[in-house]
Amino acid sequence: MSRPSILARTALALVIVLAATTVRAEDVRKAVDAGNAAFRTAFLAGDAQKVSELYTADAEIIAPGAPIARGRAAIAAFWKGGMAGVKELSLETRAVESAGDLAVEDGTVKLTGADGAVSTSRYVVVWKRDGGAWKLHRDIWNSEK
Amino acid sequence: MSRPSILARTALALVIVLAATTVRAEDVRKAVDAGNAAFRTAFLAGDAQKVSELYTADAEIIAPGAPIARGRAAIAAFWKGGMAGVKELSLETRAVESAGDLAVEDGTVKLTGADGAVSTSRYVVVWKRDGGAWKLHRDIWNSEK
Repeated sequence: MSRPSILARTALALVIVLAATTVRAEDVRKAVDAGNAAFRTAFLAGDAQKVSELYTADAEIIAPGAPIARGRAAIAAFWKGGMAGVKELSLETRAVESAGDLAVEDGTVKLTGADGAVSTSRYVVVWKRDGGAWKLHRDIWNSEK
Repeated sequence: MSRPSILARTALALVIVLAATTVRAEDVRKAVDAGNAAFRTAFLAGDAQKVSELYTADAEIIAPGAPIARGRAAIAAFWKGGMAGVKELSLETRAVESAGDLAVEDGTVKLTGADGAVSTSRYVVVWKRDGGAWKLHRDIWNSEK
Protein backbone atom coordinates (compact mmCIF):
# COMPACT_ATOMS: atom_id res chain seq x y z
CA MET A 1 0.00 0.00 0.00
CA SER A 2 1.42 3.39 -0.92
CA ARG A 3 1.67 6.03 1.78
CA PRO A 4 0.40 9.53 1.03
CA SER A 5 3.26 11.92 0.37
CA ILE A 6 4.25 14.61 2.82
CA LEU A 7 2.89 17.13 0.31
CA ALA A 8 -0.50 15.41 0.09
CA ARG A 9 -0.74 15.18 3.86
CA THR A 10 0.26 18.83 4.28
CA ALA A 11 -2.32 19.88 1.68
CA LEU A 12 -5.02 17.88 3.48
CA ALA A 13 -4.08 19.41 6.82
CA LEU A 14 -4.24 22.89 5.28
CA VAL A 15 -7.70 22.23 3.82
CA ILE A 16 -8.92 21.05 7.22
CA VAL A 17 -7.50 24.13 8.98
CA LEU A 18 -9.02 26.50 6.38
CA ALA A 19 -12.38 24.75 6.58
CA ALA A 20 -12.33 24.91 10.38
CA THR A 21 -11.45 28.63 10.25
CA THR A 22 -14.31 29.32 7.84
CA VAL A 23 -16.80 27.38 9.97
CA ARG A 24 -15.57 29.27 13.02
CA ALA A 25 -15.96 32.68 11.36
CA GLU A 26 -19.49 31.72 10.29
CA ASP A 27 -20.27 30.60 13.86
CA VAL A 28 -19.09 33.94 15.28
CA ARG A 29 -21.12 35.85 12.69
CA LYS A 30 -24.20 33.79 13.63
CA ALA A 31 -23.60 34.50 17.32
CA VAL A 32 -23.32 38.24 16.60
CA ASP A 33 -26.52 38.16 14.52
CA ALA A 34 -28.32 36.27 17.31
CA GLY A 35 -26.97 38.72 19.90
CA ASN A 36 -28.23 41.66 17.85
CA ALA A 37 -31.65 40.04 17.41
CA ALA A 38 -31.87 39.48 21.20
CA PHE A 39 -30.78 43.10 21.74
CA ARG A 40 -33.51 44.44 19.45
CA THR A 41 -36.22 42.28 21.05
CA ALA A 42 -35.29 43.27 24.62
CA PHE A 43 -34.87 46.93 23.58
CA LEU A 44 -38.26 47.19 21.88
CA ALA A 45 -39.87 45.43 24.87
CA GLY A 46 -38.41 48.21 27.04
CA ASP A 47 -36.48 45.66 29.12
CA ALA A 48 -33.28 47.54 30.01
CA GLN A 49 -32.29 44.85 32.51
CA LYS A 50 -32.39 42.17 29.83
CA VAL A 51 -30.46 44.40 27.42
CA SER A 52 -27.76 44.90 30.08
CA GLU A 53 -27.40 41.13 30.48
CA LEU A 54 -26.28 40.94 26.83
CA TYR A 55 -23.15 42.88 27.90
CA THR A 56 -20.12 41.54 29.78
CA ALA A 57 -19.86 42.43 33.48
CA ASP A 58 -17.13 45.01 32.71
CA ALA A 59 -18.54 46.28 29.42
CA GLU A 60 -18.53 49.94 28.44
CA ILE A 61 -21.00 52.00 26.48
CA ILE A 62 -19.30 55.06 25.04
CA ALA A 63 -22.18 57.13 23.72
CA PRO A 64 -21.87 60.62 22.21
CA GLY A 65 -22.83 63.31 24.69
CA ALA A 66 -22.85 61.01 27.75
CA PRO A 67 -20.30 59.81 30.31
CA ILE A 68 -19.03 56.25 29.77
CA ALA A 69 -21.49 53.69 31.23
CA ARG A 70 -19.38 50.91 32.75
CA GLY A 71 -20.84 47.65 34.08
CA ARG A 72 -24.36 46.23 33.88
CA ALA A 73 -26.06 48.53 36.41
CA ALA A 74 -24.82 51.67 34.60
CA ILE A 75 -25.66 50.08 31.23
CA ALA A 76 -29.22 49.23 32.31
CA ALA A 77 -29.66 52.80 33.57
CA PHE A 78 -28.27 54.19 30.30
CA TRP A 79 -30.62 52.14 28.12
CA LYS A 80 -33.63 52.75 30.37
CA GLY A 81 -33.27 56.40 29.41
CA GLY A 82 -32.16 55.70 25.83
CA MET A 83 -35.05 53.45 24.86
CA ALA A 84 -37.79 55.90 25.86
CA GLY A 85 -39.71 57.07 22.80
CA VAL A 86 -38.00 54.67 20.36
CA LYS A 87 -40.46 52.62 18.36
CA GLU A 88 -38.04 50.83 16.04
CA LEU A 89 -34.38 49.86 16.17
CA SER A 90 -32.58 48.37 13.21
CA LEU A 91 -29.00 47.12 13.24
CA GLU A 92 -27.17 46.56 9.99
CA THR A 93 -23.88 44.70 10.38
CA ARG A 94 -21.26 45.69 7.81
CA ALA A 95 -18.48 43.32 8.88
CA VAL A 96 -17.42 40.97 11.68
CA GLU A 97 -13.82 39.95 12.29
CA SER A 98 -12.79 37.67 15.11
CA ALA A 99 -9.80 36.11 16.84
CA GLY A 100 -10.11 33.80 19.81
CA ASP A 101 -12.58 35.25 22.30
CA LEU A 102 -12.81 38.70 20.69
CA ALA A 103 -14.90 39.78 17.71
CA VAL A 104 -15.22 43.22 16.17
CA GLU A 105 -18.44 44.23 14.46
CA ASP A 106 -19.03 47.43 12.63
CA GLY A 107 -22.33 48.59 11.29
CA THR A 108 -25.10 51.13 11.17
CA VAL A 109 -27.96 51.56 13.62
CA LYS A 110 -31.22 53.36 12.90
CA LEU A 111 -33.58 54.48 15.64
CA THR A 112 -37.10 55.54 14.74
CA GLY A 113 -38.79 57.83 17.25
CA ALA A 114 -42.49 57.91 18.14
CA ASP A 115 -42.84 60.84 15.73
CA GLY A 116 -41.33 58.78 12.88
CA ALA A 117 -38.02 60.70 12.84
CA VAL A 118 -35.05 58.41 12.08
CA SER A 119 -31.60 58.94 13.56
CA THR A 120 -28.69 57.04 12.04
CA SER A 121 -25.34 56.24 13.68
CA ARG A 122 -22.25 54.23 12.78
CA TYR A 123 -21.05 51.87 15.51
CA VAL A 124 -18.24 49.55 16.48
CA VAL A 125 -19.12 46.78 18.92
CA VAL A 126 -16.43 44.59 20.40
CA TRP A 127 -17.95 41.24 21.36
CA LYS A 128 -16.27 39.00 23.91
CA ARG A 129 -16.88 35.31 24.51
CA ASP A 130 -17.76 35.05 28.17
CA GLY A 131 -18.51 31.60 29.62
CA GLY A 132 -19.26 30.31 26.12
CA ALA A 133 -21.64 33.16 25.19
CA TRP A 134 -20.72 36.13 22.99
CA LYS A 135 -21.54 39.39 24.76
CA LEU A 136 -21.14 43.08 23.97
CA HIS A 137 -17.95 44.32 25.61
CA ARG A 138 -17.35 47.74 24.05
CA ASP A 139 -20.14 49.68 22.38
CA ILE A 140 -19.29 53.03 20.77
CA TRP A 141 -21.01 55.06 18.08
CA ASN A 142 -21.28 58.46 16.48
CA SER A 143 -23.15 60.23 13.75
CA GLU A 144 -22.01 61.48 10.35
CA LYS A 145 -24.21 64.55 10.76
CA MET B 1 14.68 8.59 41.07
CA SER B 2 11.13 9.73 41.70
CA ARG B 3 9.06 10.95 38.78
CA PRO B 4 7.08 14.16 39.16
CA SER B 5 3.41 13.45 39.76
CA ILE B 6 0.79 14.21 37.10
CA LEU B 7 -0.42 17.02 39.39
CA ALA B 8 3.05 18.61 39.62
CA ARG B 9 3.53 18.38 35.88
CA THR B 10 0.06 19.85 35.21
CA ALA B 11 0.76 22.69 37.64
CA LEU B 12 4.09 23.40 35.93
CA ALA B 13 2.42 23.40 32.50
CA LEU B 14 -0.23 25.81 33.80
CA VAL B 15 2.40 28.18 35.18
CA ILE B 16 4.21 28.16 31.84
CA VAL B 17 0.96 28.87 29.92
CA LEU B 18 -0.01 31.69 32.31
CA ALA B 19 3.47 33.20 32.12
CA ALA B 20 3.41 33.02 28.30
CA THR B 21 -0.03 34.67 28.23
CA THR B 22 1.17 37.48 30.51
CA VAL B 23 4.28 38.08 28.43
CA ARG B 24 2.14 38.12 25.29
CA ALA B 25 -0.32 40.65 26.75
CA GLU B 26 2.61 42.85 27.79
CA ASP B 27 4.06 42.59 24.27
CA VAL B 28 0.76 43.67 22.70
CA ARG B 29 0.48 46.58 25.13
CA LYS B 30 4.04 47.64 24.24
CA ALA B 31 3.20 47.43 20.52
CA VAL B 32 0.10 49.59 21.05
CA ASP B 33 2.12 52.14 23.06
CA ALA B 34 4.79 52.21 20.33
CA GLY B 35 2.10 52.56 17.63
CA ASN B 36 0.55 55.49 19.49
CA ALA B 37 3.95 57.16 19.94
CA ALA B 38 4.62 56.79 16.18
CA PHE B 39 1.14 58.16 15.48
CA ARG B 40 1.74 61.25 17.63
CA THR B 41 5.17 61.92 16.08
CA ALA B 42 3.90 61.65 12.48
CA PHE B 43 0.76 63.65 13.35
CA LEU B 44 2.65 66.55 14.95
CA ALA B 45 5.10 66.55 12.01
CA GLY B 46 2.07 67.05 9.73
CA ASP B 47 2.89 63.84 7.84
CA ALA B 48 -0.57 62.49 6.93
CA GLN B 49 0.97 59.89 4.60
CA LYS B 50 3.07 58.43 7.42
CA VAL B 51 0.05 58.45 9.74
CA SER B 52 -1.97 56.53 7.13
CA GLU B 53 0.75 53.86 6.94
CA LEU B 54 0.11 53.06 10.61
CA TYR B 55 -3.33 51.79 9.53
CA THR B 56 -4.14 48.48 7.79
CA ALA B 57 -4.92 48.66 4.06
CA ASP B 58 -8.66 48.17 4.77
CA ALA B 59 -8.83 50.24 7.94
CA GLU B 60 -11.71 52.57 8.73
CA ILE B 61 -11.81 55.89 10.52
CA ILE B 62 -15.30 56.55 11.85
CA ALA B 63 -15.13 60.16 12.99
CA PRO B 64 -18.07 62.19 14.32
CA GLY B 65 -19.50 64.49 11.67
CA ALA B 66 -17.63 62.91 8.75
CA PRO B 67 -18.23 60.05 6.32
CA ILE B 68 -16.27 56.86 7.07
CA ALA B 69 -12.70 57.09 5.69
CA ARG B 70 -11.83 53.62 4.37
CA GLY B 71 -8.36 52.66 3.15
CA ARG B 72 -5.04 54.51 3.38
CA ALA B 73 -5.71 57.14 0.67
CA ALA B 74 -8.96 58.24 2.34
CA ILE B 75 -7.29 58.07 5.77
CA ALA B 76 -4.36 60.24 4.64
CA ALA B 77 -6.84 62.78 3.19
CA PHE B 78 -8.87 62.72 6.42
CA TRP B 79 -5.84 63.38 8.64
CA LYS B 80 -4.39 65.98 6.29
CA GLY B 81 -7.47 68.04 7.07
CA GLY B 82 -7.72 66.93 10.71
CA MET B 83 -4.17 67.82 11.74
CA ALA B 84 -4.34 71.44 10.55
CA GLY B 85 -4.11 73.81 13.50
CA VAL B 86 -3.38 71.10 16.09
CA LYS B 87 -0.29 71.84 18.15
CA GLU B 88 -0.48 68.95 20.60
CA LEU B 89 -2.01 65.50 20.60
CA SER B 90 -2.07 63.31 23.69
CA LEU B 91 -3.33 59.74 23.81
CA GLU B 92 -4.12 58.14 27.13
CA THR B 93 -4.74 54.39 26.91
CA ARG B 94 -7.22 53.10 29.49
CA ALA B 95 -7.09 49.40 28.60
CA VAL B 96 -5.84 46.96 25.95
CA GLU B 97 -7.30 43.48 25.49
CA SER B 98 -6.10 41.11 22.82
CA ALA B 99 -6.72 37.72 21.26
CA GLY B 100 -4.64 36.36 18.40
CA ASP B 101 -4.17 39.08 15.78
CA LEU B 102 -6.75 41.49 17.20
CA ALA B 103 -6.36 43.94 20.07
CA VAL B 104 -8.87 46.43 21.42
CA GLU B 105 -7.68 49.64 22.99
CA ASP B 106 -9.84 52.21 24.65
CA GLY B 107 -8.71 55.57 25.84
CA THR B 108 -8.95 59.32 25.76
CA VAL B 109 -7.43 61.69 23.22
CA LYS B 110 -6.79 65.39 23.78
CA LEU B 111 -6.13 67.79 20.93
CA THR B 112 -4.75 71.24 21.67
CA GLY B 113 -5.42 73.87 19.03
CA ALA B 114 -3.14 76.75 18.05
CA ASP B 115 -5.26 78.98 20.31
CA GLY B 116 -4.67 76.64 23.27
CA ALA B 117 -8.24 75.27 23.30
CA VAL B 118 -8.34 71.59 24.24
CA SER B 119 -10.89 69.14 22.81
CA THR B 120 -11.27 65.77 24.50
CA SER B 121 -12.71 62.59 22.98
CA ARG B 122 -13.10 58.98 24.06
CA TYR B 123 -11.96 56.41 21.49
CA VAL B 124 -11.89 52.73 20.71
CA VAL B 125 -9.12 51.56 18.39
CA VAL B 126 -9.06 48.00 17.10
CA TRP B 127 -5.49 47.05 16.27
CA LYS B 128 -4.73 44.19 13.89
CA ARG B 129 -1.46 42.34 13.45
CA ASP B 130 -0.62 42.67 9.80
CA GLY B 131 2.57 41.02 8.53
CA GLY B 132 3.97 40.98 12.07
CA ALA B 133 3.21 44.66 12.79
CA TRP B 134 0.29 45.92 14.84
CA LYS B 135 -1.71 48.51 12.89
CA LEU B 136 -4.85 50.55 13.49
CA HIS B 137 -7.78 48.76 11.87
CA ARG B 138 -10.86 50.51 13.26
CA ASP B 139 -10.65 53.98 14.77
CA ILE B 140 -13.82 55.49 16.22
CA TRP B 141 -14.40 58.25 18.76
CA ASN B 142 -16.91 60.66 20.16
CA SER B 143 -17.18 63.37 22.77
CA GLU B 144 -18.94 63.43 26.12
CA LYS B 145 -19.93 67.04 25.51
